[in-house]
Amino acid sequence: MRRSVFFLPTLKENPAEAQIVSHRLMLRAGMIRQHAAGIYNWLPLGLRVLRKVERIVREEQDAAGAQEILMPTVQSAELWRESGRYEDYGKEMLRITDRHERDMLYGPTHEEVVTDIFRQNIKTYRDLPKMLYQIHWKFRDEVRPRFGVMRGREFLMKDNYSFDLDFAGARRSYNRMFVAYLRTFARLGLKAIPMRADAGPIGGDLSHEFIILAETGESGVFCHKGLLEMTVPSNVDYEGDLQLLVDEWTSLYAATDEKHDPGSAEVTEIADELVSARGIEIGHIFYFGTKYSKAMNAVVTGPGGEPVTVEMGSYGIGVSRLVGGIIEASHDDAGIIWPESVAPFKVGLINLKVGDATTDRMSEALYITLRKAGVEVLYDDRDERAGAKFADMDLIGLPWQLIVGPKGVARGVVELKNRATGQREEISVDAALSRLGA
Amino acid sequence: MRRSVFFLPTLKENPAEAQIVSHRLMLRAGMIRQHAAGIYNWLPLGLRVLRKVERIVREEQDAAGAQEILMPTVQSAELWRESGRYEDYGKEMLRITDRHERDMLYGPTHEEVVTDIFRQNIKTYRDLPKMLYQIHWKFRDEVRPRFGVMRGREFLMKDNYSFDLDFAGARRSYNRMFVAYLRTFARLGLKAIPMRADAGPIGGDLSHEFIILAETGESGVFCHKGLLEMTVPSNVDYEGDLQLLVDEWTSLYAATDEKHDPGSAEVTEIADELVSARGIEIGHIFYFGTKYSKAMNAVVTGPGGEPVTVEMGSYGIGVSRLVGGIIEASHDDAGIIWPESVAPFKVGLINLKVGDATTDRMSEALYITLRKAGVEVLYDDRDERAGAKFADMDLIGLPWQLIVGPKGVARGVVELKNRATGQREEISVDAALSRLGA
Repeated sequence: MRRSVFFLPTLKENPAEAQIVSHRLMLRAGMIRQHAAGIYNWLPLGLRVLRKVERIVREEQDAAGAQEILMPTVQSAELWRESGRYEDYGKEMLRITDRHERDMLYGPTHEEVVTDIFRQNIKTYRDLPKMLYQIHWKFRDEVRPRFGVMRGREFLMKDNYSFDLDFAGARRSYNRMFVAYLRTFARLGLKAIPMRADAGPIGGDLSHEFIILAETGESGVFCHKGLLEMTVPSNVDYEGDLQLLVDEWTSLYAATDEKHDPGSAEVTEIADELVSARGIEIGHIFYFGTKYSKAMNAVVTGPGGEPVTVEMGSYGIGVSRLVGGIIEASHDDAGIIWPESVAPFKVGLINLKVGDATTDRMSEALYITLRKAGVEVLYDDRDERAGAKFADMDLIGLPWQLIVGPKGVARGVVELKNRATGQREEISVDAALSRLGA
Repeated sequence: MRRSVFFLPTLKENPAEAQIVSHRLMLRAGMIRQHAAGIYNWLPLGLRVLRKVERIVREEQDAAGAQEILMPTVQSAELWRESGRYEDYGKEMLRITDRHERDMLYGPTHEEVVTDIFRQNIKTYRDLPKMLYQIHWKFRDEVRPRFGVMRGREFLMKDNYSFDLDFAGARRSYNRMFVAYLRTFARLGLKAIPMRADAGPIGGDLSHEFIILAETGESGVFCHKGLLEMTVPSNVDYEGDLQLLVDEWTSLYAATDEKHDPGSAEVTEIADELVSARGIEIGHIFYFGTKYSKAMNAVVTGPGGEPVTVEMGSYGIGVSRLVGGIIEASHDDAGIIWPESVAPFKVGLINLKVGDATTDRMSEALYITLRKAGVEVLYDDRDERAGAKFADMDLIGLPWQLIVGPKGVARGVVELKNRATGQREEISVDAALSRLGA
């Protein structure tokens, strides 16, 4: 993409309304613009990142055996009356009346809708287990939306729902999602820590929040240092037993500041191994048994012909929130530092002297070669000061900057800068291309 | 994907509520389920098709130089008061009040929002032209939603908006979209005919509907037979002059029954070349000048420093509607016949004797080989009657059926059926694989 035609309205100044770094940087890097309180437009640069995050989330859901569906944003209130949540949900639910005076709502979550799909279409234990997920927009009418996409009202979420015949099956589904989450966040370049969360009225230990570490994170996090050193397996057999892996990740102490008790025995015991950090909640997995299936009569025929009320769980990832979360975890004073897996482009190509025939020719040649090789490249072909171009490129945070100037071109070299390390080196054109995978 | 685990609830009977063939087949093929009037859940098979249609629409928008953004579904009423449409729009607009009693709405279209994005971020003629599009869900509160996804309330649309400095530029943008639409529909396996449409209060000839031909189409279509024989160029230089191409496609007579006047001179003149058919409106492109830019003050600085109110156009494709439209255009008594470009899977692999060791082994081997080669395959590994499997596979309409039975396996052959032609042939396993691109 040529910068001269790309719709990328970067800002030099920090917008006054943004309180946290990801919100500031997303506005300054031309990724988003606010439409109304907690409601954003995604501009091309931001949308490219959002789609890459979405794709990684999708691939890991699919790998874990989940199947993608798409449920409507506008739901009928009827199902929520069946589950008993219509009155309970409170003001965060955006309630709507259609032209025929029917009660509708903009879905803040989809347990009711997916349970309805299940009960209408699945009748026998032979069709279990099933994990159905979607990646779709939700609306929660937060009283004080803030922090940009980190706490918006309209937001993109991956929500998965599992259906099993019994608790053992539900635990297997839970474990699959537990591991899929570890893999998802690792691929996004994030260090994520699962933390036991409130299980609600059902009790039990099958409820975990996933917290990613970021210096500017909203919550304090305390955990055994061993957790920070654990690695996520790159190959997972989702048909196999995942219990050992889950046990390994849940055996060490981890708590957010809300739950952390410095004086407790389990904390004092590991005082030497305890580290404190800051984090952001980015996912939640949750077993809730027959809460909805019972209320909504989601029953299958069991192996012996008997009716069985299915066991359910739900598993959420805040996809649009993750875009902000990744920035919180990866930035410096100059701007964003994208992990390569979600970078809007891999390479920023900077022409230092637009109008100079040899520099233009070399820049164009590199642009074409990179594109032909399938390397995503943003080519800054604008007639602007070098300093402004460098600052802009640092701000938007592409992993690599390829800098083409008249002096280098005369000697057959270009400069390659790694955005994360800041390291710059002069290398031959061929070496630069091969380093960038072209 | 294995049929035994795939969430694909096909139906043997025709659902009583479905009046048209695409609605019937989408329900029977387990593609969609109704959630509420005009609001649908997309099940895995349907979602795969929707995503493929979406991808082709996106690729052709990008090729034509449009840039993708994403605007919110929930909009503030303020902008609509600026444009004057808030009161005018009537009951099709789903109006919403949020917890702070602010007037919001679920976007039925996005001219106001995109004009607001433009005016906030683009200030100079040097940043023109711009075409910004999104593929996103909209809501129109139809008084009588019907025909499944063909006339739903919540629907997926591609909407593009162009911004130009003057009429000549606006016409160039219009022409780009005109050609992009021809290419999009051709890639979807559809015969699409552009028809001059009402330009509304602005007048002029820059308004065309695109109608796809389908025997079961909602409208009568009358056109010069030459239009049916024209081909869409496979390579388009969008930087070049497209006027000749557009003229070629708009020079021959074409009208829907609403506008067709059998007694008119232009019709009697071509009486011998006139054909009548049926069609479905699937896209609309529309130049509307400064209607919104004037009301909302979308002004750039022109080359001479003067303020210029930008010229706009909008270009829509009903993406979810297209899924129904393609089925209307391509089906038979047995079910859907997917064009390969949007088929949910390319191949349906049928194991005729599940439990027979050699047949199972051959089927599994084919399944693995096809998948490894990147061929999308649905493997019917269920222990069901052959007749039921054939009927199911015909219903869901995959382009190829690969049929594996014990007798054939003994002789090293399988059967390959082309869903569109109905042709079946016995061929060697290797020949079948190579035919399917593996």
